[in-house]
Amino acid sequence: MNDSPIPMHHTRGEPDDVRMRGFAQRQTVDAALAWLDAQLQPLTAEMVPLRVAAGRVLAASVVSDVDVPGFDRAMMDGYAVLADSTEGATAYTPLPLKVVGEAMPGCPFDGVVRKGEAVRIMTGAPMPDGTDSVVPAEWIGAEADLINALAAVSPGKHVGQRGEDITKGTLVLESGRVLRPQDLGVLSSVGHAEVQVVRRPRVHLAVTGNELVPSGMRPRAFHIADANGPMLAALIDRDGGLVDFPGLVRDDRVAILTALHADADIVIVSGGTSVGIEDLAPMLVAQYGELAVHGIAMRPSSPTGLGRIENRIIILLPGNPVSSLCAYDFFAGRAIRALGGRSKEWPYRAVCGRLNRKINSLIGRLDYARVRVADGLVEPLAVTGASVLSSTTRADGFVIVGEDSEGFPAGAEVEVWLYA
Amino acid sequence: MNDSPIPMHHTRGEPDDVRMRGFAQRQTVDAALAWLDAQLQPLTAEMVPLRVAAGRVLAASVVSDVDVPGFDRAMMDGYAVLADSTEGATAYTPLPLKVVGEAMPGCPFDGVVRKGEAVRIMTGAPMPDGTDSVVPAEWIGAEADLINALAAVSPGKHVGQRGEDITKGTLVLESGRVLRPQDLGVLSSVGHAEVQVVRRPRVHLAVTGNELVPSGMRPRAFHIADANGPMLAALIDRDGGLVDFPGLVRDDRVAILTALHADADIVIVSGGTSVGIEDLAPMLVAQYGELAVHGIAMRPSSPTGLGRIENRIIILLPGNPVSSLCAYDFFAGRAIRALGGRSKEWPYRAVCGRLNRKINSLIGRLDYARVRVADGLVEPLAVTGASVLSSTTRADGFVIVGEDSEGFPAGAEVEVWLYA
Repeated sequence: MNDSPIPMHHTRGEPDDVRMRGFAQRQTVDAALAWLDAQLQPLTAEMVPLRVAAGRVLAASVVSDVDVPGFDRAMMDGYAVLADSTEGATAYTPLPLKVVGEAMPGCPFDGVVRKGEAVRIMTGAPMPDGTDSVVPAEWIGAEADLINALAAVSPGKHVGQRGEDITKGTLVLESGRVLRPQDLGVLSSVGHAEVQVVRRPRVHLAVTGNELVPSGMRPRAFHIADANGPMLAALIDRDGGLVDFPGLVRDDRVAILTALHADADIVIVSGGTSVGIEDLAPMLVAQYGELAVHGIAMRPSSPTGLGRIENRIIILLPGNPVSSLCAYDFFAGRAIRALGGRSKEWPYRAVCGRLNRKINSLIGRLDYARVRVADGLVEPLAVTGASVLSSTTRADGFVIVGEDSEGFPAGAEVEVWLYA
Repeated sequence: MNDSPIPMHHTRGEPDDVRMRGFAQRQTVDAALAWLDAQLQPLTAEMVPLRVAAGRVLAASVVSDVDVPGFDRAMMDGYAVLADSTEGATAYTPLPLKVVGEAMPGCPFDGVVRKGEAVRIMTGAPMPDGTDSVVPAEWIGAEADLINALAAVSPGKHVGQRGEDITKGTLVLESGRVLRPQDLGVLSSVGHAEVQVVRRPRVHLAVTGNELVPSGMRPRAFHIADANGPMLAALIDRDGGLVDFPGLVRDDRVAILTALHADADIVIVSGGTSVGIEDLAPMLVAQYGELAVHGIAMRPSSPTGLGRIENRIIILLPGNPVSSLCAYDFFAGRAIRALGGRSKEWPYRAVCGRLNRKINSLIGRLDYARVRVADGLVEPLAVTGASVLSSTTRADGFVIVGEDSEGFPAGAEVEVWLYA
């Protein structure tokens, strides 16, 4: 609540804005991001088995200490020979070769091959000592102990050289890379069972609101079912965080203070983040740590707070679900991605399209407008309420109106960030 | 091995091509996809808890059987009144209102409010009976048992109507949708603890090759470490499949036959998929089921096979890692995504760029060329070997040359699919 006796500004029917009367000053989004970014150092590394490493961020460059393959090998089925043995061979002047053995993948020929001799070989099998090339099976006139070469081969023909894929000493993958499926293949090739990756940020999620019943319960009487908990947990997971969401938190000092001191890299509080006397979290952060940002010039989400308590980054998200999503994406997701060694940029794809209706905003305030996109036409959704979460499921994405803009007229070309 | 006595075609130093001499006829990629697509019906549904539902595919549309919110509520802090009580109020002609109680979120005011009365109310609290609007706190001249309204409000002002977010009977989310984080919020809002999603395809992965040692072992002597297993497992996971990868499979009839009869929706065999007598999997599929496609006009990956055994889709991927990745993306990933109710399209983003060197191909054969992309310039990697997996880690993505094309000249504008 606020006891100021006179109107401070005209209300525009936008709850977030109206409630913001109490913020003495709202910081710009850029200023808030600048403070946040200064807090974001990638976490330490941990070893994880390859089978769970896809999508993780490599914490140290990998240099191979082996050749892959570790031996010369046949690249087709045929006969391994010294190329000299086939010199002058043609279909009309076949050259006889004595078959002295067989080489199979994983099962090499043990002896040494001399001129005039051949070893039957399968693709992938190690090249026997004394050989330097493979005569393909179809260039052989007969198959028995004595065969005929029907064509000459040059040294190295149809041989995959040792180290052809990866040479010992090669920088295979660089630190900071998000591991792709094929990267795991390469790491396996060079003999790694585990890989050093950036630790996933531990994110404690405290959803407050005495009007809430836990997700999974049917809303009844004067309660609503928690929407922010499941949404934020999925977002944290998407951005590489490890979610710790023990359940709803009562709007009381001890419960919130306990959450703010959780064993985590980041604590996200949802709800009770404005300036009323019931908005406990901002006061507690200011009291027990640093409330660096409180109140941001954006719509929705202006009752957002950023701070620290000891080594935890604290992010206070408004309780209104759309505000919560928007503030998550601007601040919390960015922090989680950066601590985890990932790009600070949104994980959304941007497309361009033409507005079919204007979007209004105000100079000095950033707006987050949900839109639909069809056939390159961008339609702003006619919703104002920050509590209308279904607007973000009807929407294909959102348009950002920067704080230096009053909005976009109908027909303007705009950038749309597509929800994924 | 192949005992044909004369060369059937000129070799081009590309192992897959060369080994393909034995395919009497190679099918086009389109023909292979047509057969495959005819097999792909989405699987049945299963219920999963909301907290693991992000990214899953909704199997049935969701209609809300509740209003969200289920009650009218205050959208700002202030006093709930009957709008009539404030008629004519201004800062110069304040109207007195008697405060008869308090309404908090989750804790409503029990009585009925009459004209001239007000209830102190917080954002999110249920509107008391008899009220229809909220006078914002800053339009109140004093706060005590008797307050002064300094402005008039109209009915409905600063009130969030019951059902404002979601009205009972609304189609909330449509079947087939890939669930976003905010969708989980909405599902929670309407009281769902679980959601019906398409079952994840169970994919049995059989990696063959007697030259292989399991991933995690250091390659030694004449063995190489399995690269395909970890890569394919991560790809299957990416595409929504449930991976069953019990370890390497010996190149023998019983072991492969057992794998082909695994309890799975899809069996993927890696390696031994060509036409030699050691290539057991294609023969076994033909013998125990249907080998519908074997040999495809593409480079790499031509020794790819598609078939069925009973109700399993069988996909035979070449053992060479690049071929394996390419054939996975063309066929296996598509099948997994489609069975799981997802789009058949690649999960890769396409960008356009200009080639800095030509890419050669042949009419009648589709080519998959790894490329790097920098500043809009597309550089084909100078690698030919299908065994050089590191080419797919050095690459940013790939360019497809269709079978009706001989390639692209330097300077051509091409579409690049970016690995993600």
